[in-house]
Amino acid sequence: MSVKITTKEQAEKLISSYDYFLFDCDGVIWLGDHLLPSVSETLTYIKEQNKNIIFVTNNSTKSRDDYLSKFGKFGIKNIAKSEVFGSSYASAIYIEKILKLPKDKNIWVLGEEGIEKELKELGYTTIGGTDPKYMENGVKFDANDPLLSQIDENVGCVLCGLCFQINYLKLSMTMQYLNKGLPFIATNIDSTFPANGKLLIGAGSIIETVAYATSRQPDAICGKPNQSMMNSIKADNPNLKDKPKRGLMIGDRLNTDMKFGKDGGLDTLLVLTGIETEENVKNLNNDEQPTYYANKLGDLYDLIFLE
Amino acid sequence: MSVKITTKEQAEKLISSYDYFLFDCDGVIWLGDHLLPSVSETLTYIKEQNKNIIFVTNNSTKSRDDYLSKFGKFGIKNIAKSEVFGSSYASAIYIEKILKLPKDKNIWVLGEEGIEKELKELGYTTIGGTDPKYMENGVKFDANDPLLSQIDENVGCVLCGLCFQINYLKLSMTMQYLNKGLPFIATNIDSTFPANGKLLIGAGSIIETVAYATSRQPDAICGKPNQSMMNSIKADNPNLKDKPKRGLMIGDRLNTDMKFGKDGGLDTLLVLTGIETEENVKNLNNDEQPTYYANKLGDLYDLIFLE
Repeated sequence: MSVKITTKEQAEKLISSYDYFLFDCDGVIWLGDHLLPSVSETLTYIKEQNKNIIFVTNNSTKSRDDYLSKFGKFGIKNIAKSEVFGSSYASAIYIEKILKLPKDKNIWVLGEEGIEKELKELGYTTIGGTDPKYMENGVKFDANDPLLSQIDENVGCVLCGLCFQINYLKLSMTMQYLNKGLPFIATNIDSTFPANGKLLIGAGSIIETVAYATSRQPDAICGKPNQSMMNSIKADNPNLKDKPKRGLMIGDRLNTDMKFGKDGGLDTLLVLTGIETEENVKNLNNDEQPTYYANKLGDLYDLIFLE
Repeated sequence: MSVKITTKEQAEKLISSYDYFLFDCDGVIWLGDHLLPSVSETLTYIKEQNKNIIFVTNNSTKSRDDYLSKFGKFGIKNIAKSEVFGSSYASAIYIEKILKLPKDKNIWVLGEEGIEKELKELGYTTIGGTDPKYMENGVKFDANDPLLSQIDENVGCVLCGLCFQINYLKLSMTMQYLNKGLPFIATNIDSTFPANGKLLIGAGSIIETVAYATSRQPDAICGKPNQSMMNSIKADNPNLKDKPKRGLMIGDRLNTDMKFGKDGGLDTLLVLTGIETEENVKNLNNDEQPTYYANKLGDLYDLIFLE
């Protein structure tokens, strides 16, 4: 049975039991543009106990630098770039280290600036993505658009993620590249994207369009719950690799965050500030339950200092 | 074994053997904006033999009136509106006759003008679709777009088809309506859309996005090879209903046109002017083969008059 964290003793014991704290961001640290209560204090307290913290997010529209800016806007200034691990960064690392794509090959991007920034930081050239060339024509799409015939023979890989500026031209261009048999990488496959209390189209739903159109599935998925993301984190943190039970994955989604932690051998803490409810947790089978759950991340601080 | 039509005798016998000729359009009558050779003469000859002709197309971006205009541009003026059966018309008929949606209910459309025109002709009001309101905001999408909260409580059904002006806002709006549990109708589920010798994104691939995002599948699919389209055609042609073997389905796709004809009990003729090749036909199992195949539809005329 999952243990609900409701007392000072539980909160103190939880923090002292782990060396590594992995956090999902949206639904845990913030909800869209609103910082959740007592989060800043909780993070500072955990860091003061000489613990390692790592932010693990599937949102590929932002780069690690964008995340640091977002933390900064909330007044949280003590985060290092190396403590942020997003699916756009994970994808870029995958393409460089696992796919070993030469740096003189281009990458076709169906997605936003976060993906482009991380790829460029590793020395790759991207095409597609947020290039306005594919935006203006896409709005008034016609099948005679000459861009459809301008296939870059130097593209060596296709990377797809959440794409707010999606259009028919970009989707059809992506299809042309996938039909050449190029490696097909997905940042993540979340079906939905929570924003302002609504569920909008997620990266996985966009990727499903081009997957269905080409009868292909992604060759690699770099976001939670896929373990390629965990393997990269463990590669940077050998102590976590050897002793996964010294790590705690904190998140708001059972099918991504909790599965990600559990599959990686870590303990898990579900917070109820995102899309899951206490009722959902109670209805789970024993083997599906997180190790712990709490109303919110900030309870760890509130229980220790405010009760 | 499928019989290839290569002689005058075969062509004459084929035409005399059937009372109803059902034609797919793209890949059979025309390729995009190019009329295929000897098609006009073939259609005129078949009509002169007092045969019934019906055009059956999955392309929902055009209404029946749009199709008549397109035939007219090619100089083919002897087609009646009742001889055209498109997936947008089939969907409108389905919503009126099968779903029995009251006329004072609105319909949310993810698709193009062809769908809107057919629904309006039956007296329905559409929202979404080609309304520029959802286009201008979609280009510069942000999660705070007030349109996302303007859900029309009077919408009674969601109709999705091929959508060239697709964007993140329209997809996310469609998701909001589908998550209300409203009937989910698809014009057709072709994964690809052939244009100018390329395969672009088909209606089915777009519908897959919102299906994946909402964990729903369409409640009804109104295009080929689904038999709801055939049933509507047979309802208009009782002789075809009683004697399906008096009908011949002519098309360029095995998995839509040929399956549509065969499942409806009709004989089938595959033409090689679209996406299938002679090699494909020869590699099929016996039970998958069309009754006949020919290099092109116009061969029926050429073999009779030009050999």
